[in-house]
Amino acid sequence: MPNVYAVIMAGGVGTRFWPRSREKSPKQLLEIVGKKSMIQNTVSRISDLIDPKNIMIVTNKIQKLSIAKQLPNVPEENIITEPIGRNTAPCIGLAGLFVRRMDPEAVMVVLPADHIMHDEEEFRRVLRLATWVAYESGKLVTVGIQPTRPETGYGYIQVVDEDDGKNPYFKKGVYKVKTFAEKPNAETAKVFLQSGDFLWNSGMFIWRVDTILKEIETHIPEMYAELMKIDEAIGHKNYDNIVETTYKIIRGISIDYGVMEKAKEVYVLKGNFGWSDVGSWDEVYRISGKDENGNSITGQAFLHNTKNSMVYAGSKIVATVGVQDLIIIATDDAVLVCKQGESQEVKEVVDYLRRKQKNDYL
Amino acid sequence: MPNVYAVIMAGGVGTRFWPRSREKSPKQLLEIVGKKSMIQNTVSRISDLIDPKNIMIVTNKIQKLSIAKQLPNVPEENIITEPIGRNTAPCIGLAGLFVRRMDPEAVMVVLPADHIMHDEEEFRRVLRLATWVAYESGKLVTVGIQPTRPETGYGYIQVVDEDDGKNPYFKKGVYKVKTFAEKPNAETAKVFLQSGDFLWNSGMFIWRVDTILKEIETHIPEMYAELMKIDEAIGHKNYDNIVETTYKIIRGISIDYGVMEKAKEVYVLKGNFGWSDVGSWDEVYRISGKDENGNSITGQAFLHNTKNSMVYAGSKIVATVGVQDLIIIATDDAVLVCKQGESQEVKEVVDYLRRKQKNDYL
Repeated sequence: MPNVYAVIMAGGVGTRFWPRSREKSPKQLLEIVGKKSMIQNTVSRISDLIDPKNIMIVTNKIQKLSIAKQLPNVPEENIITEPIGRNTAPCIGLAGLFVRRMDPEAVMVVLPADHIMHDEEEFRRVLRLATWVAYESGKLVTVGIQPTRPETGYGYIQVVDEDDGKNPYFKKGVYKVKTFAEKPNAETAKVFLQSGDFLWNSGMFIWRVDTILKEIETHIPEMYAELMKIDEAIGHKNYDNIVETTYKIIRGISIDYGVMEKAKEVYVLKGNFGWSDVGSWDEVYRISGKDENGNSITGQAFLHNTKNSMVYAGSKIVATVGVQDLIIIATDDAVLVCKQGESQEVKEVVDYLRRKQKNDYL
Repeated sequence: MPNVYAVIMAGGVGTRFWPRSREKSPKQLLEIVGKKSMIQNTVSRISDLIDPKNIMIVTNKIQKLSIAKQLPNVPEENIITEPIGRNTAPCIGLAGLFVRRMDPEAVMVVLPADHIMHDEEEFRRVLRLATWVAYESGKLVTVGIQPTRPETGYGYIQVVDEDDGKNPYFKKGVYKVKTFAEKPNAETAKVFLQSGDFLWNSGMFIWRVDTILKEIETHIPEMYAELMKIDEAIGHKNYDNIVETTYKIIRGISIDYGVMEKAKEVYVLKGNFGWSDVGSWDEVYRISGKDENGNSITGQAFLHNTKNSMVYAGSKIVATVGVQDLIIIATDDAVLVCKQGESQEVKEVVDYLRRKQKNDYL
């Protein structure tokens, strides 16, 4: 078996989780679901599979220290920082440079830091199989999630669900990708769901490091050229400067758009392990335990004549009277009251705070 | 003209104003409406009429110091404390004992600490007239509020609105009370409103101190007997003990039920001065200024797609998304989210906190 490295992408703030998520305490460092932070759960979920010494984290300078504290078993030199977020392609390319130096034949498992899986055993089974396919085939591999609703917030992956004889892994439940589809409208999402051969694009990728770097070279050559400048600088005094300069001019582009959609052969495994990207407070409510009134409560709260609401009380006490379908999040310095189903709009609050330069609340 | 004393009743907590009102910072000591506290406004509203040296405050031991701080012009010895709240009759009787010692012919103007009047000039005109009638007639005088809606939360006063030749003050707009009515149901409240001869019972009273003490003696003789024990103890070492003992056994009874409803002759003046007892957060919203979306905001707040809501942000920032008809009150340690129209139920929250002995939040 190959050396397996995880690359955990942990650069975002998760503005939709305001007021809990802040620049200094972003979503992945919070205990949004469960008792450990999302990134701690992400690491411990794969710890049977990948040695913490083989776990790389890509983040930014603001978060680096907190991540190091939360993940004492991950070597500090494995925490790579980007000077600015430029979407997933540069992030994955940068991590690839470091992985290749350790083992040019290694398999990289790329995972977002802030997803959850209900059935972790099944998740690891899928990752093991994906790792083997990625290593043996030398192709790009991804995990698609079996859709459970006509979600318009995700991209979709259409699979070849008949055995055309050209896919040696078909019998193991590994499919060829037919096409990647952008986030659909509501109508199209329903069609996708009914068709049965569309999966949600989860943003999880498995490939050999040589494979992905070659694909970046083929499909985004100008980015590859910039990455090579960084590669030369690794271990030298001018590394920080070169990265800084490169990231100023590099295009912000996703690995999906830049590579996956253009690659000739991509394999996809079906994920049936209760995945959630925990993308909004609405989603947190959806996956939370609820009492007989449909309320989900964290902390000290008294809900009077209240239904289908989620309350996070932080260090305060929260009381509600006669309300329903609300999301209420109270932190030391801020309170959010949001209608269920509209928590995507929480980013508008963060935009407002940014415009008004209320930096203490960002 | 007689000596006029104000007796301001300031013993309540105003539990319906939780989380702003607490045992140590009750409603009347808060800036609920305007920039001064309710009791400060109550005192300054009558300062043209009554010298601060003639203002008595009846409160409890917890509030005494804060009241003294808020009202530096009121002599500290004028702040009388009750060991326990026993409704308005003992409170008024106790204050009467002190007023009688200063001037047995004085007129007492009894006012709640936590009401507001929009037209303060008109309010003072009514009080001046009431004072004169009370002094000259030696009768009980009250102020009824011209109703503007079929309110079920107040008692009503029916007036004799025709000149029967037995009321020397009729032409001045001073009426005889026909009857006092308890809080009506919704149906009855509509009838009261339409009839035109029903007024809201405002809880403001004007009378000579000798008149009210005599009326208490007549209608609640056992309370009068207890008050006399206190009267004897005034100025003596055992005063505190006697008051304590007396209040343990004294009946908690309102002046309305104990005296007003039983008295033979009561005069009432019509109040048309934009009165509010500011009885709930709903009422605060009703009298607040609102923006074009019907929102009333105090403090730092960002209301996104939000209508007809009131937000008090305290020292925090409050953000709302996609909600309407809410009352949101955030303090340092607590948050209330209440549906408009249900703020009477806020007392349920306080009851809960009391049951759970969460004394820090009371």
